[in-house]
Amino acid sequence: MTNAAPLFQRVCLIGIGLIGSSLARAMKLHGLAEHIAISTRSAETLAKAEELGLGDSYTLDAAAAAQGADLVIICTPMGAQAAVAKSIHDSLKPGAIITDVGSVKATTIRDIAPHLPGGVHLVPGHPIAGTENSGPEAGYAELFPGRWTILTPTEGTDADAVEKVKQLWLGCGANVEIMTPEHHDRVLAITSHLPHLIAYSIVDTADQLEDETKKEVITFSASGFRDFTRIAAGDPVMWRDVFLTNRDAVLEVLGRFTEDLTALQRAIRKGDGDMLEETFARARAVRRSIIDAKQHIPDVKPNGDKS
Amino acid sequence: MTNAAPLFQRVCLIGIGLIGSSLARAMKLHGLAEHIAISTRSAETLAKAEELGLGDSYTLDAAAAAQGADLVIICTPMGAQAAVAKSIHDSLKPGAIITDVGSVKATTIRDIAPHLPGGVHLVPGHPIAGTENSGPEAGYAELFPGRWTILTPTEGTDADAVEKVKQLWLGCGANVEIMTPEHHDRVLAITSHLPHLIAYSIVDTADQLEDETKKEVITFSASGFRDFTRIAAGDPVMWRDVFLTNRDAVLEVLGRFTEDLTALQRAIRKGDGDMLEETFARARAVRRSIIDAKQHIPDVKPNGDKS
Repeated sequence: MTNAAPLFQRVCLIGIGLIGSSLARAMKLHGLAEHIAISTRSAETLAKAEELGLGDSYTLDAAAAAQGADLVIICTPMGAQAAVAKSIHDSLKPGAIITDVGSVKATTIRDIAPHLPGGVHLVPGHPIAGTENSGPEAGYAELFPGRWTILTPTEGTDADAVEKVKQLWLGCGANVEIMTPEHHDRVLAITSHLPHLIAYSIVDTADQLEDETKKEVITFSASGFRDFTRIAAGDPVMWRDVFLTNRDAVLEVLGRFTEDLTALQRAIRKGDGDMLEETFARARAVRRSIIDAKQHIPDVKPNGDKS
Repeated sequence: MTNAAPLFQRVCLIGIGLIGSSLARAMKLHGLAEHIAISTRSAETLAKAEELGLGDSYTLDAAAAAQGADLVIICTPMGAQAAVAKSIHDSLKPGAIITDVGSVKATTIRDIAPHLPGGVHLVPGHPIAGTENSGPEAGYAELFPGRWTILTPTEGTDADAVEKVKQLWLGCGANVEIMTPEHHDRVLAITSHLPHLIAYSIVDTADQLEDETKKEVITFSASGFRDFTRIAAGDPVMWRDVFLTNRDAVLEVLGRFTEDLTALQRAIRKGDGDMLEETFARARAVRRSIIDAKQHIPDVKPNGDKS
């Protein structure tokens, strides 16, 4: 499925991990970019990207990659976004669009916007997609179909620029939703950040058990624990940055969660079976809503129009 | 794959939900019982079991089903085990073996053993297998292959009786491990009970959000939360009984988990990125151990010998 004319002449990808390399593959598959310029900080990773044939040009110099690009997609961990924006400042051509794939959006705007020259358009984005693997070899073109990408342009952002970024994601097969950065960060705090924090925490609790029991935790992990280890297998640097950047929203939902867990703890201690059964029944109903919303099917077809 | 002579002449299944009906199907498939007598408390469920052809005889009277059985398998929620044991007391023939499938084992022994007549053998068991569905129509014969069943006979239990229950599970394709009931309950508290409690808790936290955000939690659930809803979709009555019966072990690991989560919370509040990254990296290594132990493959072939 290729388009008559590519959506972009020159796309610059900075950072070529799971998401960056999946985007490169998807853009190639769907003919969305005439030229894909790839830049990343590590020579080893860049060589791997070239070996995999992910782009059309490769450089360790982000400024060189961004030179003349219609679209720059920053796919680094969020902690590196400010430095990347600074480094490409002088290379950006007027009218260039800058986007990213970070999991927290208010800070993207805080970290990137001040370092951009006038006349370019920032359209922050977040594809809700991923696997437990990382690095350029972990990506694949079909990561996005049926998944959502959320765009969080601020008021006054050029409507055409937003539309072009939207068309990019639709072209990769994703559904697209637009919301404010603050709202995005609150929703993701509960749907993604808190679940990951809890999964990391319980896996670490198990890891600190005495050796004999730890061995058995591995052996008998099929009973629930294994699902947590999968959630807790994401890139540690990426997740560190998520919690450092979405601190307030995460601490807020963590506070609510701790209250609810404490109430369950008290019910167990007091032997209050009715409270436990009611809570569990309510939670089961939420599962039903998700199944009804077809969110249980990993690869549903996108319902947005394709470019 | 049928055996020359069935392992048991008459097996009585009391309770015919997900696990009971899967056992019935597996015993039939593998020719492990000459006659399967099914009893359950609800007339509707019993009719469903008969309609599905799960056994050879059906009765609402547990005592009648247990009459003359070589093996009685109690597959009810744990809260009903004591009453079931009392009701079949007078029907059990000398030498009969009694087992169960409850998720907590110390209480199985406490609830069932006192109600059994002399000359019968109690071999408590726990198949670590399940799905988010419940009821007789949810079971399937292939639920057990590659999964573990833990048997927790107390000291002095007849070795032949333990061996026959072991052969039953091996015959259904499961791996079998033997340990003390107390050790079982500690291991399962961390691998299964705590993960389920936490999943129920976070799903309930999300359920209490204002309506607008709740709708978005459903829509964007693919980012971690969805996995929790699957874990939190088990039968509420069964899980209520797990927490009421394994109270001490669950409260103990819950205390450790809360400590660990509080430490992560403090690191987020203080912006301690090093602590977060180190914790996340350790958790990722646990995932690696599980993959190495092949626990990530849902249907690995059993490595125990088959009868």
